[in-house]
Amino acid sequence: MPVGTQGSVKGVWPEQLDAAGAEVLLANTYHLALRPGAERVEKLGGLHAFMGWPRALLTDSGGFQVFSLARLREIREEGIAFRSHLDGSSLFLSPEKSVEIQNRLGADIIMAFDECPALPCEEGPLSESVRRTARWLLRSKAAHRREDQLLFGIVQGGTHEGLRRESLERTLEADLPGLAIGGLAVGESREQRLAVLAFLAALLPRERPHYLMGVGTPLDLVESVALGIDMFDCVMPTRVGRHGVAFTSSGRLRLRNQAFESDGAPLDSACGGPCCSRFSRGYLRHLLMAGEPLGAMALSLHNIYYYTSLMARIRAAIRAATFPQLLGEVREIYQRKDPESDGE
Amino acid sequence: MPVGTQGSVKGVWPEQLDAAGAEVLLANTYHLALRPGAERVEKLGGLHAFMGWPRALLTDSGGFQVFSLARLREIREEGIAFRSHLDGSSLFLSPEKSVEIQNRLGADIIMAFDECPALPCEEGPLSESVRRTARWLLRSKAAHRREDQLLFGIVQGGTHEGLRRESLERTLEADLPGLAIGGLAVGESREQRLAVLAFLAALLPRERPHYLMGVGTPLDLVESVALGIDMFDCVMPTRVGRHGVAFTSSGRLRLRNQAFESDGAPLDSACGGPCCSRFSRGYLRHLLMAGEPLGAMALSLHNIYYYTSLMARIRAAIRAATFPQLLGEVREIYQRKDPESDGE
Repeated sequence: MPVGTQGSVKGVWPEQLDAAGAEVLLANTYHLALRPGAERVEKLGGLHAFMGWPRALLTDSGGFQVFSLARLREIREEGIAFRSHLDGSSLFLSPEKSVEIQNRLGADIIMAFDECPALPCEEGPLSESVRRTARWLLRSKAAHRREDQLLFGIVQGGTHEGLRRESLERTLEADLPGLAIGGLAVGESREQRLAVLAFLAALLPRERPHYLMGVGTPLDLVESVALGIDMFDCVMPTRVGRHGVAFTSSGRLRLRNQAFESDGAPLDSACGGPCCSRFSRGYLRHLLMAGEPLGAMALSLHNIYYYTSLMARIRAAIRAATFPQLLGEVREIYQRKDPESDGE
Repeated sequence: MPVGTQGSVKGVWPEQLDAAGAEVLLANTYHLALRPGAERVEKLGGLHAFMGWPRALLTDSGGFQVFSLARLREIREEGIAFRSHLDGSSLFLSPEKSVEIQNRLGADIIMAFDECPALPCEEGPLSESVRRTARWLLRSKAAHRREDQLLFGIVQGGTHEGLRRESLERTLEADLPGLAIGGLAVGESREQRLAVLAFLAALLPRERPHYLMGVGTPLDLVESVALGIDMFDCVMPTRVGRHGVAFTSSGRLRLRNQAFESDGAPLDSACGGPCCSRFSRGYLRHLLMAGEPLGAMALSLHNIYYYTSLMARIRAAIRAATFPQLLGEVREIYQRKDPESDGE
């Protein structure tokens, strides 16, 4: 899922996302609640009409942004008091409030309100956080008012196997249509993350989608799919694109590198997207060096094509029983360090 | 002609310009010569391949930017010495050098190197400038090496009728395929500009295209067509779009105005472009207020649709002999001051 934090995937038109094969977009409840406000989005017809995106949408609960962006947080059983990162105004988010906002926004998939501690985290606070997340999950479910929206629960527990198992059990008890794994990509190592996923893999119910939140690089995607993950969201394709980095079938390219200034080849000859069918690396480098908006736009869109194509290849490889070869291929590309790549 | 100063119309994809009906784009010789350099563009296949734009292109001579952007200018008969606005490096532009650069860039239409004094300008210096421009025109023509490029001459002379006539005569003597009117939109009033165009109208040869450089607003376009102008270039559609201003069939809209925050209507219900078919004014205002790139992108593209549609309507009205009505309609829209408009 490409991420449209404030109701727009940065620098990309909705019809381009559609053509790239994006099936679901993520939008951030925290950002939209602050600006323009859930009531305003509702008044303008809900998030699909607001964004001009008729396909599927997912909103997060806002909890993660309260932890990562907002100021002066106070966590209570009732919810979290904080100050807006935009204007410092005092705000309060709780399971009931988060779900009410998400009901107003109107995405197809909404997320339970959870607590997401930064890692590393001591066992005591982590345990209390997991139990509070379980209580907040039941309150989120009770507050949910729209049958046309699917509520997903979130498994927390950091890198602690016992707490992960407990959180998964509490989440499964709530009997929701989808299951997310949160609390990763928040300070732990890649090995720790893979260990958590490997531990959970055997326990995840096959009949529900498994969504790994906020992850990650192309290699992260393939390795996580190998451990049972179905859905991802990440700002990486657009964020690194804005900074001049492209994902390609031969690894990452830093387009600002002088080596590309007279390079007439497309970013990736294996890509059929509008950037690679029209622009050379030399032109893209020029756009980036000259500060032309089209540079960031073209690389963002290209990276979205790369991600959607990678996920399509993963699905095809699973069907053809050739997934291990694809995993090996992507590992080979992204673990290699070469002059055109900055590796992982 | 939408303007792609540095080889890109800011924030707009080439296929979007194509769909909007843009037939010619302008690119700036001064900017491209500084970065990435004419040799590099040539090496990457010329400006059409570089920009991914197979339709027509026009490059200016670079002279206007030397006057408006570069520093420490010294004007000699040979040419103009100046310092780059990017890095202060010493550079020199002459008729021969400008045409050589434009031959390398490879646009379909190229411009003779002229001197463009700011207005108001005393008759003495203006007269000298007109005569130098005439000598530089002959040198530009002599330096031109490519038969697949059309060289246009530029009529100067400020607001002085006698000097305008003299400059026109010298330009016509060079017997070039197109004729540009320069030296306007450089400090004179609207009335002075229209007076110059009215004076020249009776003298312009019917069989050559008449190109008014660097103009202007929608009203400027229609009023100038009434005085015999065929071609325009201006950064206005994209520049004001980036600043949140949209041209519509009911005048200019400043989308940052709070009045639009819950407005579910499209920018302009008379527009069939991708912005108006998908986005509400309320959403566009949100994008602008939130600093989302799509806001500037959508308004820039919308304004280009407005301009190309206006020119298409002008052509149709001339064929149908209803041009005076169209002129009256556009005057009524853009001379009216209303709460949603900032007038001219």
